[in-house]
Amino acid sequence: MDQIAPPPHHIDGFRAVRQLTETMVAHLEAEDTVLQFAPHVSPVKWHLGHTAWFFDTFILKPFFEGYRPFHPRFHFLFNSYYEAAGPRQPRPERGMLSRPPLAQVMAYRQWVDDAILALLHRPPPQHEHEILRRLQLGLHHEQQHQELMVMDTKLNFFHQPLRPALLPPPLHPQPAGETTSMSWRSFEGGLQPIGHHGEGFAFDNETPRHRVFLEPFTLADRCITNLEWHAFIEDGGYTTASLWLSDGWDWVQANHVRAPRYWVPDGEGHFGEFTVQGVRSLSLNTPVVHISGFEAEAFARWAEARLPTEFEWEAAFDKAGEPGSFLEDGAWHPAPATPGRGLRQMLGGVWEWTRSSYLPYPRYRPLPGALGEYNGKFMNNQWVLRGGSCATPSGHIRSTYRNFFYPQQRWMFGGLRLARDE
Amino acid sequence: MDQIAPPPHHIDGFRAVRQLTETMVAHLEAEDTVLQFAPHVSPVKWHLGHTAWFFDTFILKPFFEGYRPFHPRFHFLFNSYYEAAGPRQPRPERGMLSRPPLAQVMAYRQWVDDAILALLHRPPPQHEHEILRRLQLGLHHEQQHQELMVMDTKLNFFHQPLRPALLPPPLHPQPAGETTSMSWRSFEGGLQPIGHHGEGFAFDNETPRHRVFLEPFTLADRCITNLEWHAFIEDGGYTTASLWLSDGWDWVQANHVRAPRYWVPDGEGHFGEFTVQGVRSLSLNTPVVHISGFEAEAFARWAEARLPTEFEWEAAFDKAGEPGSFLEDGAWHPAPATPGRGLRQMLGGVWEWTRSSYLPYPRYRPLPGALGEYNGKFMNNQWVLRGGSCATPSGHIRSTYRNFFYPQQRWMFGGLRLARDE
Amino acid sequence: MDQIAPPPHHIDGFRAVRQLTETMVAHLEAEDTVLQFAPHVSPVKWHLGHTAWFFDTFILKPFFEGYRPFHPRFHFLFNSYYEAAGPRQPRPERGMLSRPPLAQVMAYRQWVDDAILALLHRPPPQHEHEILRRLQLGLHHEQQHQELMVMDTKLNFFHQPLRPALLPPPLHPQPAGETTSMSWRSFEGGLQPIGHHGEGFAFDNETPRHRVFLEPFTLADRCITNLEWHAFIEDGGYTTASLWLSDGWDWVQANHVRAPRYWVPDGEGHFGEFTVQGVRSLSLNTPVVHISGFEAEAFARWAEARLPTEFEWEAAFDKAGEPGSFLEDGAWHPAPATPGRGLRQMLGGVWEWTRSSYLPYPRYRPLPGALGEYNGKFMNNQWVLRGGSCATPSGHIRSTYRNFFYPQQRWMFGGLRLARDE
Amino acid sequence: MDQIAPPPHHIDGFRAVRQLTETMVAHLEAEDTVLQFAPHVSPVKWHLGHTAWFFDTFILKPFFEGYRPFHPRFHFLFNSYYEAAGPRQPRPERGMLSRPPLAQVMAYRQWVDDAILALLHRPPPQHEHEILRRLQLGLHHEQQHQELMVMDTKLNFFHQPLRPALLPPPLHPQPAGETTSMSWRSFEGGLQPIGHHGEGFAFDNETPRHRVFLEPFTLADRCITNLEWHAFIEDGGYTTASLWLSDGWDWVQANHVRAPRYWVPDGEGHFGEFTVQGVRSLSLNTPVVHISGFEAEAFARWAEARLPTEFEWEAAFDKAGEPGSFLEDGAWHPAPATPGRGLRQMLGGVWEWTRSSYLPYPRYRPLPGALGEYNGKFMNNQWVLRGGSCATPSGHIRSTYRNFFYPQQRWMFGGLRLARDE
Repeated sequence: MDQIAPPPHHIDGFRAVRQLTETMVAHLEAEDTVLQFAPHVSPVKWHLGHTAWFFDTFILKPFFEGYRPFHPRFHFLFNSYYEAAGPRQPRPERGMLSRPPLAQVMAYRQWVDDAILALLHRPPPQHEHEILRRLQLGLHHEQQHQELMVMDTKLNFFHQPLRPALLPPPLHPQPAGETTSMSWRSFEGGLQPIGHHGEGFAFDNETPRHRVFLEPFTLADRCITNLEWHAFIEDGGYTTASLWLSDGWDWVQANHVRAPRYWVPDGEGHFGEFTVQGVRSLSLNTPVVHISGFEAEAFARWAEARLPTEFEWEAAFDKAGEPGSFLEDGAWHPAPATPGRGLRQMLGGVWEWTRSSYLPYPRYRPLPGALGEYNGKFMNNQWVLRGGSCATPSGHIRSTYRNFFYPQQRWMFGGLRLARDE
Repeated sequence: MDQIAPPPHHIDGFRAVRQLTETMVAHLEAEDTVLQFAPHVSPVKWHLGHTAWFFDTFILKPFFEGYRPFHPRFHFLFNSYYEAAGPRQPRPERGMLSRPPLAQVMAYRQWVDDAILALLHRPPPQHEHEILRRLQLGLHHEQQHQELMVMDTKLNFFHQPLRPALLPPPLHPQPAGETTSMSWRSFEGGLQPIGHHGEGFAFDNETPRHRVFLEPFTLADRCITNLEWHAFIEDGGYTTASLWLSDGWDWVQANHVRAPRYWVPDGEGHFGEFTVQGVRSLSLNTPVVHISGFEAEAFARWAEARLPTEFEWEAAFDKAGEPGSFLEDGAWHPAPATPGRGLRQMLGGVWEWTRSSYLPYPRYRPLPGALGEYNGKFMNNQWVLRGGSCATPSGHIRSTYRNFFYPQQRWMFGGLRLARDE
Repeated sequence: MDQIAPPPHHIDGFRAVRQLTETMVAHLEAEDTVLQFAPHVSPVKWHLGHTAWFFDTFILKPFFEGYRPFHPRFHFLFNSYYEAAGPRQPRPERGMLSRPPLAQVMAYRQWVDDAILALLHRPPPQHEHEILRRLQLGLHHEQQHQELMVMDTKLNFFHQPLRPALLPPPLHPQPAGETTSMSWRSFEGGLQPIGHHGEGFAFDNETPRHRVFLEPFTLADRCITNLEWHAFIEDGGYTTASLWLSDGWDWVQANHVRAPRYWVPDGEGHFGEFTVQGVRSLSLNTPVVHISGFEAEAFARWAEARLPTEFEWEAAFDKAGEPGSFLEDGAWHPAPATPGRGLRQMLGGVWEWTRSSYLPYPRYRPLPGALGEYNGKFMNNQWVLRGGSCATPSGHIRSTYRNFFYPQQRWMFGGLRLARDE
Repeated sequence: MDQIAPPPHHIDGFRAVRQLTETMVAHLEAEDTVLQFAPHVSPVKWHLGHTAWFFDTFILKPFFEGYRPFHPRFHFLFNSYYEAAGPRQPRPERGMLSRPPLAQVMAYRQWVDDAILALLHRPPPQHEHEILRRLQLGLHHEQQHQELMVMDTKLNFFHQPLRPALLPPPLHPQPAGETTSMSWRSFEGGLQPIGHHGEGFAFDNETPRHRVFLEPFTLADRCITNLEWHAFIEDGGYTTASLWLSDGWDWVQANHVRAPRYWVPDGEGHFGEFTVQGVRSLSLNTPVVHISGFEAEAFARWAEARLPTEFEWEAAFDKAGEPGSFLEDGAWHPAPATPGRGLRQMLGGVWEWTRSSYLPYPRYRPLPGALGEYNGKFMNNQWVLRGGSCATPSGHIRSTYRNFFYPQQRWMFGGLRLARDE
């Protein structure tokens, strides 16, 4: 985070990220923006307010002299989880906020944007460096919420009887793609550098760079597809206890899990899939998506393989990683692998479950103050996912990026790539 | 239900009731109409759709030849609890319906209205009688939902941090009123006729008219006020186990109940009250409202009195009942008693808890078919309330009307009037 | 409760009731006496202690000068629900009391018995009347717990994989009995006296005697049998929503109820029944037992009849009631009806569900003090059952006796008798 | 597990371990052995049966020709979690097993012991090696249940009003001990061998031995004491959000955690502690015990330190580890540190929380068959604890031993030792 670009760059970046957020929601109904299907998702309106609140709280209030907050209660409404920032609307009740209405939240965003731009044009010199650091953090934060808006709206829409589409139908439907075979690539292990190297932005949880000793391993050159997942189902994967971790087996039983989150049985033995364009027939060559860590782990055991560790993933990426599709591509659904020579689909496409717990790197230090709550306090019982997804902005992802979810969670765009011992 | 007025009357009545519903919600934000704070309340948008669905299902589909439904899935979305009418959106998930958007629901209402008016202008003679019976039932049904919309929105708004007002502030604030003393009126009991006498509309649960033997009793000539309720609190009413039914005491403990539903401690030992106009200072001469049956029963014991039975209430009304305020008065909050010689505030004002269980009258017969689910199947564990409230349309209430809620419920406008043995 | 017999009678009665309790549990294992399958049942060891605590608390402590309690904490352990008697072991955690061990609880009983007998031989004259009133109440209380011990142990044993028998197999197995046809008996209604007439013991909830106006009705001359219940099942009774109260239908769905509580499918389309002698084949002519009020009510609707009110039951009993089997008969299971001319099986056999809510009689007054918590505070949401069961001591039951349970409860010996409008 | 001692050694070991189990429970009441306070604990009677079942299932049934099981249903009753071994009594309902009575369970143990000894005297040569391997595993398994019996009974007894003692009071009370200062010992890190080296018994989860790269670190030379924990409380440790992981903070709030599991406020600002000898005053120099991983982690942050990783712990032990107290010492409570030059109290005393997730070692392979369910399937969301406790048999623990619990669990004897970056 030490390389801070000069202001004009920041102003453009700020405008672009903020604008993209609003473009993403332009076609939603006002009622759509207040839904909260479950405590772990948030209403779109709340995302819109919270991403403004971040700049409001961490930049404008401390650094913009004479700044007048937009509304005295918005601090309470739009704080997410920052204990150091005071009390807040309980997370499970975010969906009760019909007020402020959407128009007022958009006005709040405009108010914050105007103030940020005014501040950026004439920043107080003694705070300029810190302002720019926080601006950068705030934009990466907003990009995370861009992905969350896709995830959350998809879930909210799936659980409505009308199952509306989040996006209009595409002009040119995605080609089905041919099955490209999966091959294995070997890596020799040894002491590997892991973590962010210090140029460009990174979250604190990617630091410090340090060494990890790895045994030799092999990694699949593409993600697992719907076709392969279907074979797992057909072979009794969901009903064979010995494939599952004990917690995973309890979860499968308690929730009657029989397929990925958005697969929809058509009543005649086939599956459709709910996507941002509504329910459509299952695309067999597309990476399987919206699976839990438990499912990924069970599939890997069934396939006589295993999940990679996050260190294996990162070390392999450094040698042969290739990108897939991102938020800006506009499909918000993973695409089939195309032929290639490296490790295809490593960035974008689907988040790849690893068999690593989300833990601090050696000598990890969180950011000081309230922003220290960004990452460190969540280092418990979550698994690391790597590589970003088709709903991740392309400028947001990098090889050292550590995402984390509980192993039963499925509403993010999570998939898997297999590993094996060499 | 046997006296059916001629069509023109019905057309006007239909238009008036349907229009009032829409007037009531005209100033709400679209987001307001999708909220559902708890499973027992429904979103306003759902009420709007369901009241159209009632005419759609019970009149248009069976009797309007060539009728084409507005949307194939609305039957699923807007059925409430009629098992005989097929599957439906689960009640606790009505708040997940961002779609159809509000505008489409209003269009559905218009579609149904147009069809009903067309049908009424030229009803098939062999069905005319039944159509008019169902029309009347449908309008009383819609009036019930008018009151529910007030109750539900009040609850949804109370649980938002901004605590918005449902109504704009009044031009002329309600006068505080003077305390009018409470006096007791004696009734001699004996064999009393109970139930609807057969003229005008009544629900099936008010029939058949029959005889009940009553001991002599006395009844208070007005409802209990906030001032009197405050004395109950000050005297430890909520912390004295011996005043409470066992189930009530469990409920008080488990929910930390210390005051009526919408009383708001101001942090300095006083209470404000959340009303449809937002939080305002507690009006001491106003009837206490939004109390449970458990609280009403405990208060009565504290006051060395008891709740009346529904039969005592009805017998007393026939001799001396006087009205209070209704939905059309526009305050949607009870008003203080004014001096009078009879039993004041018996109709309108607040629903009055009785110590009667909601049970079938001797020889009770539900309506045939799906409409038989309207009342009879709810005759378990609920208590009867009598008299209507300030949120009840004035044309909807009558002395034989039996409302029913579980004794722990508080979101309706429930209050109490004391009784004693003579 | 005003006729108190002279002491010798009481001493014999006291000894007999206390001894029967201990005889009933003589063959249990110590571990059996600590089980609590669900919060609404209590361990046998707790019943043994609590019935001693009743005499300890309400007679010995107030009236026996110089009395020294057995153990300082037993007051806490064995209070059931008397708020006025202070804090107590939470009901759902009675099953955590491995200590005191059974032997110590039996010693506590002996301690209390010795003190009571000493007190009875030389009662303080000014308290003698009150002591004898409470003694009588305490013995009726202990008889209620005798029935509860059968109910609770039966439930605890049913939910063990080994399904042990509570009683040894009978020397002479009960004869299967012939089907005796069911006939209807008419009653003309009118103003009927209801409630206890004042001679002999009665609980406060049976008083005061008062008048109720009844329409003409008919009552079945015996209870519904397993054979008839089986026909209800075969006819889809449990899957036909229109037969059920709304709360009942929710209960059936949520609990997957498909048969009475202790019916056990044998896997070949037939049912066995778990009894106090273990699982045995279903006796078709025996009254159905362990059904809920919801089931009874649905069955009655299916049979084009209804449940009687408690007033109808009592009025009919006064004219034609006949007894069935009781606790002392030793079978602890109802017996088939034998031919007869009156209303057979009205006392004993099975508790008969009525369609009356458990409410206070007009001018009802609870006992003063803590004993006032015996009945009155439970008058909410429960239904009245009449007539006692095969697990009720014969000296404990009478025609005015009002038992009460929530309509979903089934672990007591509840069955039904049909009524119809005349 | 490859070095198998000759039979006589095994016979003695078998007898000793089996006898110790029975000695441990000799003074319990029969009722004590059936209690189950919470789903995660098991009744003592179940432990007694299950440890016999293990030999029954994995040795006698497969290898003892002509073996006749003791009871056809015991296989169902006493299977713990082995999916491959078929259905079983649901874990939360183990406390419902009043039958078989204790005496019959002891007879089952005797039956199994007799058969095992018979088999060991004349083992089928082709299976001898496997029998001995499983025997060894079965004895280590039984030792784990010895510790569980202490943990579970302690919890069951704590939640009874009488708070009985599990052990009689000691003849010679443990000396309070002097405070011994805590000092730090440095380790230089680098590539360290981790895991079992192959001699003697180890569980599969301790293998294979492999290399881990460590940064330099320091480790405290003793565990944290009650005195130090009290300072954490006094300094607001339990009410300072910034010290806690997010999940930990939620847990503290939801459960109102304010002290270790068995600390008992005396009402005058001091704490007592419930031990196996009942409640006694808090011994300040004794290691704090019965704390969760969340508490340990928060304490470490408060102390400006951190928890060690399991690899640091193991590497440090190899250089300087010293033992504390074990099950055989008979106190079943940790003892204060005595002066010493190494890392005191590393084995025995208290299990030490590490900041390592319980994950498979590289190239880990579970045992084949049902026994493969012993460890591997639990590798999710649990944290590793190292070193054994005062309730661990001394022959059961070793430096590579990996114990694992969820970070909120406290009923085992868990404490902590601090680490810091060098």
